[in-house]
Amino acid sequence: MIYDLIVVGLGPAGVSAAIYAKRAGLKVLCLEKSMIGGYLNYIDRIDNYPGLYGISGPDFAFSLYDTISKMDISYKNKEVLSINNGEIKEVVTNDEKYLCKNVILSTGRSPRKIGIDKEQDLYGKGISHCALCDGAFYKDKVVAVVGGGNSALQEALYLSNICKEVYLIHRKEHYRVNGQAVDNINKKSNIVQLLGKNVSKLIENDNKLSAIILDDGKEILVDGLFIYIGFEPNTRFIENLNIVNKDGYIEVNKYFETEEKGIYAVGDIVKKDIYQISTAVNDGVIAATNVIEKFNEGVN
Amino acid sequence: MIYDLIVVGLGPAGVSAAIYAKRAGLKVLCLEKSMIGGYLNYIDRIDNYPGLYGISGPDFAFSLYDTISKMDISYKNKEVLSINNGEIKEVVTNDEKYLCKNVILSTGRSPRKIGIDKEQDLYGKGISHCALCDGAFYKDKVVAVVGGGNSALQEALYLSNICKEVYLIHRKEHYRVNGQAVDNINKKSNIVQLLGKNVSKLIENDNKLSAIILDDGKEILVDGLFIYIGFEPNTRFIENLNIVNKDGYIEVNKYFETEEKGIYAVGDIVKKDIYQISTAVNDGVIAATNVIEKFNEGVN
Repeated sequence: MIYDLIVVGLGPAGVSAAIYAKRAGLKVLCLEKSMIGGYLNYIDRIDNYPGLYGISGPDFAFSLYDTISKMDISYKNKEVLSINNGEIKEVVTNDEKYLCKNVILSTGRSPRKIGIDKEQDLYGKGISHCALCDGAFYKDKVVAVVGGGNSALQEALYLSNICKEVYLIHRKEHYRVNGQAVDNINKKSNIVQLLGKNVSKLIENDNKLSAIILDDGKEILVDGLFIYIGFEPNTRFIENLNIVNKDGYIEVNKYFETEEKGIYAVGDIVKKDIYQISTAVNDGVIAATNVIEKFNEGVN
Repeated sequence: MIYDLIVVGLGPAGVSAAIYAKRAGLKVLCLEKSMIGGYLNYIDRIDNYPGLYGISGPDFAFSLYDTISKMDISYKNKEVLSINNGEIKEVVTNDEKYLCKNVILSTGRSPRKIGIDKEQDLYGKGISHCALCDGAFYKDKVVAVVGGGNSALQEALYLSNICKEVYLIHRKEHYRVNGQAVDNINKKSNIVQLLGKNVSKLIENDNKLSAIILDDGKEILVDGLFIYIGFEPNTRFIENLNIVNKDGYIEVNKYFETEEKGIYAVGDIVKKDIYQISTAVNDGVIAATNVIEKFNEGVN
């Protein structure tokens, strides 16, 4: 059996690709090592996906699972260990090799952690990795941002227009960028910059984050903590393919195809500007539609 | 009052832009001449928007209306007659001028009609303008495609992999394209090409399309009719802005900004490859995020 398309990873991007491919009549197989919905399963509440205002991440994930079932899309709960490219591609799991003409990679990325107690438990309960996603939940409240790169500074700026006060905490004495981004931060009267500091402890109250303690012993009462110290794209298993850049992201063209013909990447593993559920879904639609067009034109 | 952003048109693209702008703390105003949800209001069933499998268009539209209300996004039921550009832009309706720093245009497009009886009434009841959206509802059934351009041929190919039989009907003796697209059509044994023919009558049974009658009197029993004779982007009101191409679409850069600074266009009025709800939502997110970044950086 040679599939027209194998989708690796079933977050929003992968599911949208699978829906389009299945509806177009392609033979499609999906492989997901953990849960359908991917990182949605860890999100408390989503207010910015049009049509599902206020949905919980797990409910959204369940609806994707439900769609995969109702549409009778083939799906296996398996981890992909490697992919061998060629006219026909081999997708290797621990006990089987699956053959296909096209692959869509959508394995997402994981936020880097500070590495302190309760950090994982309080995710979605005061801890976030995305101001554009969750900032609005902290309107007129006090938050802290951890990080010193461009993204962390942008997050702090974004939050400063919504929140009462923003602590910007960076472990070094200087940010990893200069110029305009730092000037913008300096101009904001409600951003308190704490350089050369680390967050060493998280204080929980009523199952939510209530304060952070810095390595100098100072306690800061906060409603939210945005950790922005980088992400690790889940692309280790395809390092042999030579499509992963130095930061672990995959570079694609406007059809979301990589430099390897027939191998596409969508969602959070792609090098791009904006990482949102809606943009991930868009990527999946465009990649799948490209595969469908080649299929219809008999190119493969 | 000078708004940070005015969104013109509240289909999926406009609503997603409004949601992001509002959550970021911008002063945003939305103007829609008819119903929130735009063309969603005319769609019978949507199976390809992840998270809302099987929803009706009106239900989807209502959920967008509900989101606008719950988020307390300013919204007026007014038609925009023109826009005057400048550092501060004037958005002109029949009784008022609204001022803003940025505009996102999302007024959609309307499919051209054959111009025969019952054509409007049977839309969503057998008549469609999008195989990628609705083709899967006609699996193993008989459909007809009207049109002779590249899009019509692509639609026919797409449908030929899903449907039992596809009639491709074009009023002229030759298609408006040649080469590979036509070769692909010729290769498909389940595509019946009817050149030099027009659809002159629609037959309805039980409130659904059941057959079409051609101008030579021939009756063809069909379950679906895909009309692909072009679209009219709703861009007449901004013809003065010099951002509309010869086909009426708006050309944008990767941030969905037009050549006029601070004027963005998203969704179906944009010149692009794929016109889907998910791609429209993506456009809105990207344009709004770009406006938000400029706002955060104090550029305007």
